[in-house]
Amino acid sequence: MFQILEIGPQGPAQVSQGDDRVGPPPEGVVRWIDLEAQDAAQLAVLAERFQFHPLTLEDCSHFDQRPKVETYADYLFLVIHGFRLPSPDGDGIDSLELHLFLGERFLVTVHAEPIPGVEMVWKRLEGEGALLHRGPDFVAYLVADAVVDAYFPLLDDIASQVDEIEDRVLDEHSQVELAEIFRFKRLLVELRKVLSPQRDVFALLAKRGEGWVGERTALYFRDVYDHVLRLHESVEATRDLLGNALDAYLWSASQRTNEIMKRLTLLSAVFLPLTFITGFFGQNFDHLPFGDDRLLVAMVATCIALPAAMVYFFVRSKWF
Amino acid sequence: MFQILEIGPQGPAQVSQGDDRVGPPPEGVVRWIDLEAQDAAQLAVLAERFQFHPLTLEDCSHFDQRPKVETYADYLFLVIHGFRLPSPDGDGIDSLELHLFLGERFLVTVHAEPIPGVEMVWKRLEGEGALLHRGPDFVAYLVADAVVDAYFPLLDDIASQVDEIEDRVLDEHSQVELAEIFRFKRLLVELRKVLSPQRDVFALLAKRGEGWVGERTALYFRDVYDHVLRLHESVEATRDLLGNALDAYLWSASQRTNEIMKRLTLLSAVFLPLTFITGFFGQNFDHLPFGDDRLLVAMVATCIALPAAMVYFFVRSKWF
Amino acid sequence: MFQILEIGPQGPAQVSQGDDRVGPPPEGVVRWIDLEAQDAAQLAVLAERFQFHPLTLEDCSHFDQRPKVETYADYLFLVIHGFRLPSPDGDGIDSLELHLFLGERFLVTVHAEPIPGVEMVWKRLEGEGALLHRGPDFVAYLVADAVVDAYFPLLDDIASQVDEIEDRVLDEHSQVELAEIFRFKRLLVELRKVLSPQRDVFALLAKRGEGWVGERTALYFRDVYDHVLRLHESVEATRDLLGNALDAYLWSASQRTNEIMKRLTLLSAVFLPLTFITGFFGQNFDHLPFGDDRLLVAMVATCIALPAAMVYFFVRSKWF
Amino acid sequence: MFQILEIGPQGPAQVSQGDDRVGPPPEGVVRWIDLEAQDAAQLAVLAERFQFHPLTLEDCSHFDQRPKVETYADYLFLVIHGFRLPSPDGDGIDSLELHLFLGERFLVTVHAEPIPGVEMVWKRLEGEGALLHRGPDFVAYLVADAVVDAYFPLLDDIASQVDEIEDRVLDEHSQVELAEIFRFKRLLVELRKVLSPQRDVFALLAKRGEGWVGERTALYFRDVYDHVLRLHESVEATRDLLGNALDAYLWSASQRTNEIMKRLTLLSAVFLPLTFITGFFGQNFDHLPFGDDRLLVAMVATCIALPAAMVYFFVRSKWF
Amino acid sequence: MFQILEIGPQGPAQVSQGDDRVGPPPEGVVRWIDLEAQDAAQLAVLAERFQFHPLTLEDCSHFDQRPKVETYADYLFLVIHGFRLPSPDGDGIDSLELHLFLGERFLVTVHAEPIPGVEMVWKRLEGEGALLHRGPDFVAYLVADAVVDAYFPLLDDIASQVDEIEDRVLDEHSQVELAEIFRFKRLLVELRKVLSPQRDVFALLAKRGEGWVGERTALYFRDVYDHVLRLHESVEATRDLLGNALDAYLWSASQRTNEIMKRLTLLSAVFLPLTFITGFFGQNFDHLPFGDDRLLVAMVATCIALPAAMVYFFVRSKWF
Repeated sequence: MFQILEIGPQGPAQVSQGDDRVGPPPEGVVRWIDLEAQDAAQLAVLAERFQFHPLTLEDCSHFDQRPKVETYADYLFLVIHGFRLPSPDGDGIDSLELHLFLGERFLVTVHAEPIPGVEMVWKRLEGEGALLHRGPDFVAYLVADAVVDAYFPLLDDIASQVDEIEDRVLDEHSQVELAEIFRFKRLLVELRKVLSPQRDVFALLAKRGEGWVGERTALYFRDVYDHVLRLHESVEATRDLLGNALDAYLWSASQRTNEIMKRLTLLSAVFLPLTFITGFFGQNFDHLPFGDDRLLVAMVATCIALPAAMVYFFVRSKWF
Repeated sequence: MFQILEIGPQGPAQVSQGDDRVGPPPEGVVRWIDLEAQDAAQLAVLAERFQFHPLTLEDCSHFDQRPKVETYADYLFLVIHGFRLPSPDGDGIDSLELHLFLGERFLVTVHAEPIPGVEMVWKRLEGEGALLHRGPDFVAYLVADAVVDAYFPLLDDIASQVDEIEDRVLDEHSQVELAEIFRFKRLLVELRKVLSPQRDVFALLAKRGEGWVGERTALYFRDVYDHVLRLHESVEATRDLLGNALDAYLWSASQRTNEIMKRLTLLSAVFLPLTFITGFFGQNFDHLPFGDDRLLVAMVATCIALPAAMVYFFVRSKWF
Repeated sequence: MFQILEIGPQGPAQVSQGDDRVGPPPEGVVRWIDLEAQDAAQLAVLAERFQFHPLTLEDCSHFDQRPKVETYADYLFLVIHGFRLPSPDGDGIDSLELHLFLGERFLVTVHAEPIPGVEMVWKRLEGEGALLHRGPDFVAYLVADAVVDAYFPLLDDIASQVDEIEDRVLDEHSQVELAEIFRFKRLLVELRKVLSPQRDVFALLAKRGEGWVGERTALYFRDVYDHVLRLHESVEATRDLLGNALDAYLWSASQRTNEIMKRLTLLSAVFLPLTFITGFFGQNFDHLPFGDDRLLVAMVATCIALPAAMVYFFVRSKWF
Repeated sequence: MFQILEIGPQGPAQVSQGDDRVGPPPEGVVRWIDLEAQDAAQLAVLAERFQFHPLTLEDCSHFDQRPKVETYADYLFLVIHGFRLPSPDGDGIDSLELHLFLGERFLVTVHAEPIPGVEMVWKRLEGEGALLHRGPDFVAYLVADAVVDAYFPLLDDIASQVDEIEDRVLDEHSQVELAEIFRFKRLLVELRKVLSPQRDVFALLAKRGEGWVGERTALYFRDVYDHVLRLHESVEATRDLLGNALDAYLWSASQRTNEIMKRLTLLSAVFLPLTFITGFFGQNFDHLPFGDDRLLVAMVATCIALPAAMVYFFVRSKWF
Repeated sequence: MFQILEIGPQGPAQVSQGDDRVGPPPEGVVRWIDLEAQDAAQLAVLAERFQFHPLTLEDCSHFDQRPKVETYADYLFLVIHGFRLPSPDGDGIDSLELHLFLGERFLVTVHAEPIPGVEMVWKRLEGEGALLHRGPDFVAYLVADAVVDAYFPLLDDIASQVDEIEDRVLDEHSQVELAEIFRFKRLLVELRKVLSPQRDVFALLAKRGEGWVGERTALYFRDVYDHVLRLHESVEATRDLLGNALDAYLWSASQRTNEIMKRLTLLSAVFLPLTFITGFFGQNFDHLPFGDDRLLVAMVATCIALPAAMVYFFVRSKWF
């Protein structure tokens, strides 16, 4: 569904729906057209009114593009990725593609599903329509900034969960599932896949004078670029910490083996000598002084004292 | 066998076979010559009619080239790689080389075996001959696009199989063969070997004005370039996931060791004390009150109660 | 709180407080304005008097920037990171952000907390006011140099602790906690995160003629750049050594398993044969010559000699 | 020993020996001077007649150079590496250095030992002397091509041996020596050390107009460059596969541990209960009904049935 | 202490000491000033006479610089690193800093301790004074070459020791200390830290026309650059081999575990059945035919034959 927000030279910002005003605005008017849940018919309207390149419109119908920026004669075509929060039991984030056509006096945004960042900026502009006077490139900056900044709470959340996993692995050695560590590894692989090309996109936009991005707005895109860089570094640092957690996990398996081995060795050390003693006195020799009661007492005493002494010795020498 | 598809200034597209029309077409005509299962005689015809460089024709006879693009005075020489689907029990993909000579008014494609992407575009152009009017560079784009896009289902298939392997490793610990994981590692090594140089090829073609690729077609090659980038990122991400699967597999070996050790320790813990008890009462002392039936009952009770208590204790304290 | 240090064409350096003199100084005057624990009102004063870009002032209020350098028409905006020493039981370093605005005749430094390097330079300039005549870019160099040089004792301390950890792991095999190794890994990840972008910052400033940094001062910034490079190389080398320590730690776990296994095997080797011997003579055969005393003596001798011989053999053949 | 092959403007190619004709040839003559097993006196002759730079002649006397290309005023100095096949029981390849001086009308090749590629080209030119008319740069191409192409069978051989090692590791788990894997790792390290700088050499020569390499010949060097790239990629891919083999080898050690543990546990599981039973009936109680024959039969039956049942259970539940 | 070596337009080279002649030489004179064990007073003399930049002199007093090259108006400032041989029981190499000031007619070298390469060149120039006529840049080349070439025997020595360690790990499995491997790893980390920046230094000097390095001498510095590259590649290759040694070492730990396990299993396999047999005949049943001598003989025969058969079977089936 098309939604249009526009402002003329003087008047306040106007909101409208439907495809009447879809098209390049007249001189002095700045127009933002938002198209959600696009279908073939609506894309055909865009193609006809704006003369967008067939390839870019094909991209808009498939929505399987990596973040990129492409310069055409009359407009800049931008693909950036937001994300839908992973459901608690899900195993991944869904990225939400946002396609932007940025021309001299217009911005067209196309997305298949509602994206929180876009909605937020739309509401803000409905209130502060005058911001539209700063040009469609500034609106594009506001949208990109809102979409990128939404990654920060997600990454902070992941970082603190990874931190907590590392602590748990080191403290208790048994309550962490390997699948849990791999789930985060997968999440970070996906985030990196989304953020890496985005870095190039904003580095390009931050260079002054690229396409329809004015010099003044380029300064703002440099800010977005810095944010993406910071996100990227956070992803890398979190991967490093997750690597620690995995190392610790694998190590705790050896540790457990050692614990079990120690118990088995302790058991054997206590009972093998006892079995020998009882076996010794179970032999059938005529002249063994088996009738002597003091020997019996000594045997029983040994059977009690020997294991006790061994356990005491093991504990004291920190053998176990 | 030579197959020729050509279109004149007005007329519809014409299809012919044999080497009569092999050669640069006259002004106003666009010609696509497809040569499958080339032999020395046919390459000699190409050499004579088109004056192709001896090195490029030598490449065509060997078919062991890496993807590359080479600019000559009169034409652009392109090598790209498709692939033959791995047979279910095979251990690798076979890459299918496709050599393209792209001139001002002609495109010559040479390949040893049928390549699905080439056949698809050929059939499409037989129907929509007018597309030939967009120039041989556009035809080259159509072929390259069809060849590259064929990788997507292959990679999606590999990615989902790797996913499923990781799940199986984590869930059951025993039904996965190491050879299976290595088979995919090998596949991904081969795919990367094919895709990496292809990246450079299309990056070059996407730059406007290179050789006989027009500015308008360069935009389309940029699209192919983006696809190759996406394929490349998928290969890397799948390698990462496969690395997880391998880590989990190696870890599951330690895990199995621990399981077996636990059973052995449990067995020893249950039977060593019992052996001691029976050994104790097997001793030959005169004054041991062996004649007392209550002792007999106590002994039998101990032989039943002690293991039961130990197992209960182990289970309850989650020792095992 | 604003603190101002300034020097006129002739007079000695003057120190003042409060916001009276906040603003670009008149011709011939060099002014350093230091703002600690900034609040919104003070930033508003800066915005009004200096016309700083809204984005840079927003950065100053958030203090979550990575090191960077941004050129504006009238000034250079610089973010560099110092650090607060980790508390002994803490698990990380806190970086202290320092924001610098460097203009033709002024330097404005903004920081949330006291930074030792800044205080040191301030005290030095109070004494040697004439240094201000070398320009605000030279003052910026002094501050950057003091902040960067503070990393050296920290890194030397970390390197020697890592060295000592490696020695302890190799010598005693048991007194090191895995958590200790991971604490240093985390520290180094954080340090690298802070130092990497700083490298780019000073590389840029070391190029002559960038923004308001004079050619003569650029030579000095090249020195700071070399220091950052050296710090970076130290971080990498320390990571390598920490990797060694981790390898050794993981290896010592296998080593411990082997030690325990050896003891278990020794125990079994000593007692299993003895148990067989006593079992042999515990059998109930009529015609076994159990009444012969020499056999009894032989049996007892064997029970003493056999284990002794085995232990002797094991020790001598370095089996254990 | 000097060997000279030269062709005048018309005449056929002439072969001569000795140092009479060593020196720059007259106008219209193309001369190839091959010097094998050079000594100081012969190098002095070269220095005097050609005025080669002292550093390049020093290189020729030491033969410990990495592949490189150096441009001098009158000639191009080239170092490339061939190799001597590793002996079956050897542990490395010996690289054979080939030094080339390429001038306007001459090519001087210096090598300490016979290099098959050089001999092959020499024989070919003796037959087809007219090829010399294409210039000394083309002769240099022929030599470089022959030397580089000799690597292909070597690498194919290594790749198939590594393949076979991986298969053996996965199938039998015991017939591969770790030393065998490391021998190939070492071979690949050496090959990479030789091929990496060669890449840069031919990349430089493939650029048109470098030194005395004509534009037409540069096309041919691009071909050599592509071959070196392909060799390099093969080395990397083979390293990856060797990494797999090593992983599998290390994993098979854990696997063997598990196998042995299983057998030990099986043994214990079968005999510990039996020992308990016989111990039970070996006790000395008066009122135990030891005189009952049915009990005897039951005991013997249990001693047979119990182990059988356990083994059956273990096998059926895939415990073992 | 200052040592001066200089040559006038005609006369032979003159050697002098003390600071009389410290300073830029007159036209036509080439002067090399060597300052060993510099102190503040001597550096002040250099500062006064040569007007060296304060930062470079500060570097000379601290001696904690990484290799670098800095261009000033009147001279080139160079830092390169030699090394002191590690003492046999030491755990590292000490790098020896050498600072060079290279002007139009002078070379000043400053170092804290005697450096063999510098002494060697000094002695050579005392003998062949005419070499000074080739300019101070050529003298700087001679010094740099001597300092760099001293690394070759060190690296060859390390490489052969690492080789020998790998062989020992593979052959005997027990005589290598992990600390030994780590000592070499540390050595290589340090060497790489010293050689990496040196690479950049000589790459810069090898470019013609940089600072006071003439075109002719640049050719010689390219030679030094090639040597540093070769050293660097050797360090990397040696690290690879050391990685093999470490892998083999870690693997040998698993191997030892397996050996011990096998022995334990063999012991258990031999004695557990025997214990069962003796236990069986130790039972107290009335009607067991314990009086039969043939049974006794059979029992003893079994006790001998069974273990023998098992060991034979194990050895034959390569179980052990």
